[in-house]
Amino acid sequence: MTKFAQKICVACQPDAKPATQSEIDMFLTDNPEWSLVVTGTVKSIEKVYKFSSFADALRFTNLVGEIAEQEGHHPAITTEWGRVGVQWWSHKIANLHLNDLILAARCDQRYAKM
Amino acid sequence: MTKFAQKICVACQPDAKPATQSEIDMFLTDNPEWSLVVTGTVKSIEKVYKFSSFADALRFTNLVGEIAEQEGHHPAITTEWGRVGVQWWSHKIANLHLNDLILAARCDQRYAKM
Repeated sequence: MTKFAQKICVACQPDAKPATQSEIDMFLTDNPEWSLVVTGTVKSIEKVYKFSSFADALRFTNLVGEIAEQEGHHPAITTEWGRVGVQWWSHKIANLHLNDLILAARCDQRYAKM
Repeated sequence: MTKFAQKICVACQPDAKPATQSEIDMFLTDNPEWSLVVTGTVKSIEKVYKFSSFADALRFTNLVGEIAEQEGHHPAITTEWGRVGVQWWSHKIANLHLNDLILAARCDQRYAKM
C-alpha cells in the first residue's frame, strides 16, 4: 500500500501522459480492493469503504477531502449510510494519471488509521 | 419551497406507504430542479447543487449530513469539485416516502442560506 502512497504528486497539465498500463497493474496488485472502470475512453479507479454509521462515513469523506485539497486534485466521493465510494481520475486528461493512483493509496492509508 | 420543508418527518417502517403521485407532482412543481428517477421499481429524487470550489461543495455535503442525522434518514451525497449531487429515497420501502420530499426541500432551504 505504501509504495504508491509515498510517491509525490506532480501538477497535471492537459498534455500530461496518463498512467501506464504497467503502473495501473502494479497499483491494482498492491491495492486489490480498487477496481478499474473504463467508461468510453475514460479510465478511472473506484473503491467502496465500509463503516458502521453515517457519521463515520461522513468523517471519512472529510478526510478524503483533506487529501484532495492538499494536492489540489479531487475525486468523486459518494457518501451513504455506512459506505463511501471514492472514484479517482484526472479531468484534465480525461484519463488516469499517476496522481490518481497515489491519492487512492493515501485514502487507503487514512482509512487504515480510522 | 417551504411547504415541504416545514412538514414533519415520521418514522418510516417497512410497511409505510410511499409518497403518492400527487405528493410527488406537487413537490416537483414546487422544486423544479429536482428530478424523479425510476430505476426498476425504485423511485428516487435527485438534484445537483453547484459551487465555486471543492471546499464549498464539501461544506454543503456536511450540511446535508446534518439534515440527515437530525431525522435519522440518509441520502446518497456525491461530492465533486464544484458540485454536490443529492439523491433521496427510502431504503426500508425501496421507494419514495414523504420524508424524502421533506428533507429534499430542507436541503434547498440550507443551500439558499449559503
